[in-house]
Amino acid sequence: MIQGVGASSGIAMGKAFVLPNWEWDVPDQKIDVTDLAREFERLYEGIRSSKREIEQIKGELADVVGSEERSIFDAHLAILNDPVFMNEIQGIIKRQYKAAEAAVKEAIDHFVTMFDLLDDEYMKERALDIKDVGNRLLKHLLGMPEISLPTDTQPFILVAREISPSQLVHLNPQHVLGIVTITGSMTSHASIMARALGLPLVTGLDVPLETLAETGDMMIIDGDTGIVIPRPTEEQIRIYTEQQRRQTEHRSRLRRLAGVRSVTPDGKEIALEANISSLKELEVALQSGAAGVGLFRTEFLYMDRHQFPGEDEQFEVYKAVAEKLAGRPLIIRTLDIGGDKNLDYFEIGEEDNPFLGYRAIRICLDRPDLFKTQLRAILRASAYGKVKIMYPLISSVEEVRAANRLLEEAKRELQAEGVTFDPNVPCGIMIELPSAVTIADLLAEEVDFFSIGTNDLIQFVLAVDRMNERISRLYQPFHPAVLRMLRMTVDAAKRRGIHVGVCGEMAGDPRALPIWLGLDVDSISMSSHSILPIKEHLLHTHRSDSIDLLNRLWECRTEKEAIRLLEAFRLSVEARMEAANGDGKPASVKRSAPAGKSPDANVPAAEPGIRNPARPAGTAGAP
Amino acid sequence: MIQGVGASSGIAMGKAFVLPNWEWDVPDQKIDVTDLAREFERLYEGIRSSKREIEQIKGELADVVGSEERSIFDAHLAILNDPVFMNEIQGIIKRQYKAAEAAVKEAIDHFVTMFDLLDDEYMKERALDIKDVGNRLLKHLLGMPEISLPTDTQPFILVAREISPSQLVHLNPQHVLGIVTITGSMTSHASIMARALGLPLVTGLDVPLETLAETGDMMIIDGDTGIVIPRPTEEQIRIYTEQQRRQTEHRSRLRRLAGVRSVTPDGKEIALEANISSLKELEVALQSGAAGVGLFRTEFLYMDRHQFPGEDEQFEVYKAVAEKLAGRPLIIRTLDIGGDKNLDYFEIGEEDNPFLGYRAIRICLDRPDLFKTQLRAILRASAYGKVKIMYPLISSVEEVRAANRLLEEAKRELQAEGVTFDPNVPCGIMIELPSAVTIADLLAEEVDFFSIGTNDLIQFVLAVDRMNERISRLYQPFHPAVLRMLRMTVDAAKRRGIHVGVCGEMAGDPRALPIWLGLDVDSISMSSHSILPIKEHLLHTHRSDSIDLLNRLWECRTEKEAIRLLEAFRLSVEARMEAANGDGKPASVKRSAPAGKSPDANVPAAEPGIRNPARPAGTAGAP
Repeated sequence: MIQGVGASSGIAMGKAFVLPNWEWDVPDQKIDVTDLAREFERLYEGIRSSKREIEQIKGELADVVGSEERSIFDAHLAILNDPVFMNEIQGIIKRQYKAAEAAVKEAIDHFVTMFDLLDDEYMKERALDIKDVGNRLLKHLLGMPEISLPTDTQPFILVAREISPSQLVHLNPQHVLGIVTITGSMTSHASIMARALGLPLVTGLDVPLETLAETGDMMIIDGDTGIVIPRPTEEQIRIYTEQQRRQTEHRSRLRRLAGVRSVTPDGKEIALEANISSLKELEVALQSGAAGVGLFRTEFLYMDRHQFPGEDEQFEVYKAVAEKLAGRPLIIRTLDIGGDKNLDYFEIGEEDNPFLGYRAIRICLDRPDLFKTQLRAILRASAYGKVKIMYPLISSVEEVRAANRLLEEAKRELQAEGVTFDPNVPCGIMIELPSAVTIADLLAEEVDFFSIGTNDLIQFVLAVDRMNERISRLYQPFHPAVLRMLRMTVDAAKRRGIHVGVCGEMAGDPRALPIWLGLDVDSISMSSHSILPIKEHLLHTHRSDSIDLLNRLWECRTEKEAIRLLEAFRLSVEARMEAANGDGKPASVKRSAPAGKSPDANVPAAEPGIRNPARPAGTAGAP
Repeated sequence: MIQGVGASSGIAMGKAFVLPNWEWDVPDQKIDVTDLAREFERLYEGIRSSKREIEQIKGELADVVGSEERSIFDAHLAILNDPVFMNEIQGIIKRQYKAAEAAVKEAIDHFVTMFDLLDDEYMKERALDIKDVGNRLLKHLLGMPEISLPTDTQPFILVAREISPSQLVHLNPQHVLGIVTITGSMTSHASIMARALGLPLVTGLDVPLETLAETGDMMIIDGDTGIVIPRPTEEQIRIYTEQQRRQTEHRSRLRRLAGVRSVTPDGKEIALEANISSLKELEVALQSGAAGVGLFRTEFLYMDRHQFPGEDEQFEVYKAVAEKLAGRPLIIRTLDIGGDKNLDYFEIGEEDNPFLGYRAIRICLDRPDLFKTQLRAILRASAYGKVKIMYPLISSVEEVRAANRLLEEAKRELQAEGVTFDPNVPCGIMIELPSAVTIADLLAEEVDFFSIGTNDLIQFVLAVDRMNERISRLYQPFHPAVLRMLRMTVDAAKRRGIHVGVCGEMAGDPRALPIWLGLDVDSISMSSHSILPIKEHLLHTHRSDSIDLLNRLWECRTEKEAIRLLEAFRLSVEARMEAANGDGKPASVKRSAPAGKSPDANVPAAEPGIRNPARPAGTAGAP
């Protein structure tokens, strides 16, 4: 039994197929000085083909994964467009008279060595990206095919030293049960992609590839606990087969919950809504029984293009989403670019601290032309469903009023044009700045609803960039200050009688559920894949217990104390879930158990060779 | 009368000396391919000489201005060390076979044009820096002297199209009464330097240099209102002479306040303390009658060097400051690097949002070796004065406890070594994160005092980087959320009975004074130059009025409303100051009047040719 990092959920059992350590055999070919122009042309042609291919992959992925996963390939395109990378290759051709493929090989080796030297997770990931892009470029220059996997055998577990996102997207899910790689981490691009595709993946193993397994060996991998078992015993196969069975059962049990009302045993109903970025994602949300869309991130409409989308184009999308929701509420958040989300065609300029910079509503109020185009499109869509408008990053009463003035203008214009819309379209704000929390009572008088954006709020309250790995332990969702801010916000909304929801990542965390119940939040909005697990918890959580818990929670002086209480509460809820289902521990308990915990059941073996991917998770619930 | 930007305070009257538009006459000399090595060597030698000279200027400035002004020259050194800049010059020499000076000229022109094109204040300032550095480099390559100013005439007002920090520091204050430049802004390096040197400066004039004045013309400039009067009438000379007289009187009146107790007419005493960065700055603080040092920024001990300062070295500085304060309190803030303050010898790495990153106490708790060295040095100094320790950027109870554990360790070590120190040295924290405000009641139980760092607090509460010009209007010190957070913090301290102070820039703003008085803050710490003006206001502000004002302030829904109240209050206080001094409006009222407001007095003329710099302000009160 080998302990690795469980990077994509699910159990897989089957025969191993070991991918040989692949190295391109690039002849170190010299060229004549008169051939320089031809080699440059070959290089450019290779780059063009590579870009076309990447664009094609992105297109294909559009039907399979979210925009965040697709953006991995934007990073690859960026490398091909990077003048430093190109200069390096051209320089080698020009100065050393090498053939294009030899120059590409040398440049890749150069950059990969450089990045690897830095001994930094982020840089290592960049090295992998360059290697991935370089290999694609070499493939085009050398005219070689994709690395091919057997298709005539039983489905197998792919074992490799490392795997690139490009390789991953070409795997046929009919043939691959799961993946094990020696190098990699939770955050590597391959892991993100595997999660999005629902392929179990264990990575970061501290053993050489040769000793791990040989092609044809039987193998078990557990993408939840990070355990890899090469050549398992009969007993181990029995245990994991049982676990697979339970996971399968749990999934079908969850699926059956899609149509069930989301209400606690003591009668408190709370709407479980979905965060989405596209019409595509809405389908998954509806399959998960979402009660509506609590956050439609419109910025993805603005990305991957060359100019701002026009009013009609936006209207069509908003209308389609509204209609598909068939009367369920749809909160459309106005454009939230800036920070870490930028548009190619809209220059924000270098900022020392983009999270504290020119972003979201700040840009929109600066550019009433853009903003009104979007507001008009949303208003027009409001004739086709239960549409609500939400402004992001509000820090003051003035900003709300300024945004509302533009909204009123847009309404007057549409009225004059004789266009129909909901004249009473509710208008709310994200509560995601400490200032908004602190004056929540004043803001509540200006708007129809609040939605707490926990991700940004936590970042600002604690002054911690959650993407900064050096201080990630300081990003504390259950910090007493954060908990108090949640309470202040909900209290202010309740006193004014307006709707209050939550749409940050915390909404999908079962540990946070009693907080929402205790505070009496009206709705929580999360990644679609979290809705059914959260609903299962909700059905076994009493509001009265949640209120008791909160009373103890307010006494906590540190996040550690708070988490201890919330964890214990979650375990008690899950014990009730277990008892209700009457078949031992539910899979979800196991899934969130600390890595390395061994399974304890023993039941009849099932056929090996069955992949059992858990939820096709991946896309984080970040608003 | 021409309206410009008053960039450095004070009135100057005298004859103009117009600096001719200087352009280096650089021959566009070609070199032979065999001379390449020689030209490179000339370039390197020029760079070395330029660097030496800049280091020398920095050394000389150490006695005159603060570290923040000196850091302007660090920016210049950075340019000389920038590989992009060097590559550009070397490339021109190598490819175009140009002499070093011609290459430098071309490179400068290239970068300056580029930056200018961007039409952005920040980029224009970078262009000026490059021009300044380039001119220095050219001077060394061409062997030309500094631009020389007349020394045999009456002191004069320097008139120029633009002026660089390098030129400014070489001005002899005996000969220059004030400066007028056509291009420039409040935040340009030359303005910062002029403020630090106490030289009146008006900039940003919308007229060509030629029409402004000729050498020998009489001229008046007002660095407070931004008014420039070329060839003034007798009447105008009389008016400004009177104003100069009033300013002089006001300054001597302020000087007399240095020894006066800082107490309101109704008996509320509040300690007015100084923020300092060095022993040097302490002298100015004591001359201003500082009641102590509310913030000793120790990071400047760590800058401009090649390794961390040792314990003994730190001890000597802390001891010297403590002794010089002769029993007045001294709050030493532990190392606060990161964010925008970095050390050459301590690599933090690239961060997307350094303000939300690896900083201050976060680094110190990660590096107990460094932290304990400083704590030991501070403890040892505590035997020589009323020393207190303050931790920056505290976000949680755990951080305070972790820091205190190291402090206890340091105490035990010193005890074992038989070193004397104050075993009860008070230990406090900066309140500068929203989380710290929100759990101020919990933190108050862990520490001996709070000091509110308003600058960072405002940035985080509002999610606004105050250095980001695009959103500077959103940096609102009097935002209702900020005011409420100040109240929450002071209330928590008062309930626990611990000392609470303020050490951000707000402490030096007279509009904020009634807030501190109304809330009953114990001390406020500011730039030394603000202490006496604030004391004058304090002596005419009733605490009871402040409490009344606060009651109305809590009702404000926007910063605008709050500022309206606070401005009106300040004016009423200043009217009382005026009445008490009995000589018409005090200069301070005029100084803060909107630019363009014309003076209204008419009194006998004084001798022209007298410079009348206001406070040698400049160094911002930022903690």
